[in-house]
Amino acid sequence: MEDEQRANLERVSREDHEAKSALWAAKADYYPEKLVELGLKSIDRFVQYHPNPSRLMKMGITFGHRDLESVADAMANNKPWAVVSGLNPSGPLHFGHKQVFDELLWLQQQGADVYIPITNDESYVVDKAKSLGESRKIAYEQVIPSIIAMGFSSEKTHIFVDSDYPDIYNLAMDVSKHLSLNRVFGVFGFGQDEEGENPGTVFYRGAVQIAQILLPQLEEFGGPKPTLIPVGVDQYPYILLARDIARKKGLIPPSAIFTKFTHGLDGQGKMSSSRPASTISLTDEPKSAQRRIRGAYTGGSVLASFQKEHGGVPGVCPIYTLRTYHFEEDNRVWDQCSNGEILCGQCKGAATEDVVKYLTDHQEKLVDARKRIDEFILKTPIKSILK
Amino acid sequence: MEDEQRANLERVSREDHEAKSALWAAKADYYPEKLVELGLKSIDRFVQYHPNPSRLMKMGITFGHRDLESVADAMANNKPWAVVSGLNPSGPLHFGHKQVFDELLWLQQQGADVYIPITNDESYVVDKAKSLGESRKIAYEQVIPSIIAMGFSSEKTHIFVDSDYPDIYNLAMDVSKHLSLNRVFGVFGFGQDEEGENPGTVFYRGAVQIAQILLPQLEEFGGPKPTLIPVGVDQYPYILLARDIARKKGLIPPSAIFTKFTHGLDGQGKMSSSRPASTISLTDEPKSAQRRIRGAYTGGSVLASFQKEHGGVPGVCPIYTLRTYHFEEDNRVWDQCSNGEILCGQCKGAATEDVVKYLTDHQEKLVDARKRIDEFILKTPIKSILK
Repeated sequence: MEDEQRANLERVSREDHEAKSALWAAKADYYPEKLVELGLKSIDRFVQYHPNPSRLMKMGITFGHRDLESVADAMANNKPWAVVSGLNPSGPLHFGHKQVFDELLWLQQQGADVYIPITNDESYVVDKAKSLGESRKIAYEQVIPSIIAMGFSSEKTHIFVDSDYPDIYNLAMDVSKHLSLNRVFGVFGFGQDEEGENPGTVFYRGAVQIAQILLPQLEEFGGPKPTLIPVGVDQYPYILLARDIARKKGLIPPSAIFTKFTHGLDGQGKMSSSRPASTISLTDEPKSAQRRIRGAYTGGSVLASFQKEHGGVPGVCPIYTLRTYHFEEDNRVWDQCSNGEILCGQCKGAATEDVVKYLTDHQEKLVDARKRIDEFILKTPIKSILK
Repeated sequence: MEDEQRANLERVSREDHEAKSALWAAKADYYPEKLVELGLKSIDRFVQYHPNPSRLMKMGITFGHRDLESVADAMANNKPWAVVSGLNPSGPLHFGHKQVFDELLWLQQQGADVYIPITNDESYVVDKAKSLGESRKIAYEQVIPSIIAMGFSSEKTHIFVDSDYPDIYNLAMDVSKHLSLNRVFGVFGFGQDEEGENPGTVFYRGAVQIAQILLPQLEEFGGPKPTLIPVGVDQYPYILLARDIARKKGLIPPSAIFTKFTHGLDGQGKMSSSRPASTISLTDEPKSAQRRIRGAYTGGSVLASFQKEHGGVPGVCPIYTLRTYHFEEDNRVWDQCSNGEILCGQCKGAATEDVVKYLTDHQEKLVDARKRIDEFILKTPIKSILK
């Protein structure tokens, strides 16, 4: 009977391992293929020549770019350059956001002025918030303190909540003249969710987002300069649109770096607030994060002996990505897992230790961060486009 | 030979008179038919019961309304009510605008708080200005001083230039959620001028305009109140849209009064800055206005004797509308013209006298008005929708 049970578990483990391996085989080439398909460049050369590339770049998590050259030139020659990375405030920051902000922090340390639009208007018009007020509250109470606590410099960080910086809409109106509705629909789609489409969504996606990207190049912020946007590959058409509008306005076409997504702990795609089981928020109780990691999907097997012999499948494992995207300095976990040297329990233990330490530290820093919000808020009125 | 010439002139006069009469016969029922078609009410009852109706109402130039009852109630009982009338600043005010502002002035004298959005964003996105700055300049230099010079009270007049009051865009984003793109296209059309369609136009027409209408009902302006919008009949679908959104937001559906248009002096339709020969601007040199009146199209004949016998056709005559819409207290000119009692020369003389007097007086008042702009500018931040 025990033999029969064991045989069953062996069979389940084998089938599961085969399924996970097949899934990974299907996904492994996604990002390399995207580079070729979209004509992007690999980050490898930049990593090779930069004296101190970011951890995410060295790990290949920030894996590609478009026109990083213009930014690299400004970086190397101490000329002004900027980074813009927006965020729609529908809840506290999670590790998916942390990944982006880790990269922003490195970019700031290389000299970038970092602009962070908190797009509470987007949250509202795309139905992620009941009112502008609700998403605005989340911005100040949950999002901005976490950004500050991550260690950004108040000198070189410019945060604005869209509804509290409505000057951005003047720039959006200005930008809008260089766009047609058909073009916006071409880039962002239309009609997939007709009920949700409203004039605000179209204006937000087409014009306000572009305005946010071009903002650092206005006269009040020192005029035209290389600007870098960290995005996912699915957002490339939108970068192309922004580059085109920049040219039409006599500005420098913005550059982009492309990053992989932090996986959700539920194994169902990228980490997202819309699937609470997929996330660890930066404001989660360490105990709750620990429980969530314990219950997470992995690339391993039900049978330890099987996994020791055949290894796990790190490519589909959110614990693997949690560790390597956020804490590891090299990729040795990949081999350790693939070779069956470490099992999921150990890996989850290591992840828990790192996450709990990070959360405890972050939450301590939040106390001070909450008092410093005003230092980080962009208040410069936009006048140059009204001349 | 003289007889032949005279016969020719008689024939031309007759043909011209017949053509003008036919034109008027085709146009005479336009406004009465619109009342029936759109289910609007005639202004007659209001004129009958109000102790002191406006000159334009008594003359039937403001001829119909939708839900004027709720406003009349506030008017009679000294409760707060508002009027909103926007204007896109593409040049100086002309007599077409003056007609609207004459009515606004009367409404203010009856107790209304008058809100005047100067929509320089509209001028820009619909291609009537090269930049937001250009239309903004026109607003402050040419439009606002003329409004002030017309005698509005700074206490009860709230003027804002859209790009200098970007809080209006927060309200527009808020409003936008109650709209769908299809609905906006249904009301305002789409695709007639695809080149001109951009996300800003759609956002402006669908959301910003509605926001302007609902603004006086926000908490910071005293909360829900009857609001009156003076419009042309072609804008009725848009009033219906505003009424619907108001209901969805728990506000009072805005009312509307409908006015006829001041004819252009060229006889080619309503007075419009886009056809300079059609207009008299409030900042025109009196001499230039005089010349333009002298050259204006009329409802009269080339042959004085013919016109004395058969009369003119005041219904198609811009000089008739100029006099009655702007200066006369009754409609006796209609009969005088139709009966052949007065000829075009006399009529143009009377119009010139009135216009020159008006322009001279207005331009004197402009000197002081230019110094008082700030008193009239709305500065109240919109906070209630961000709570």
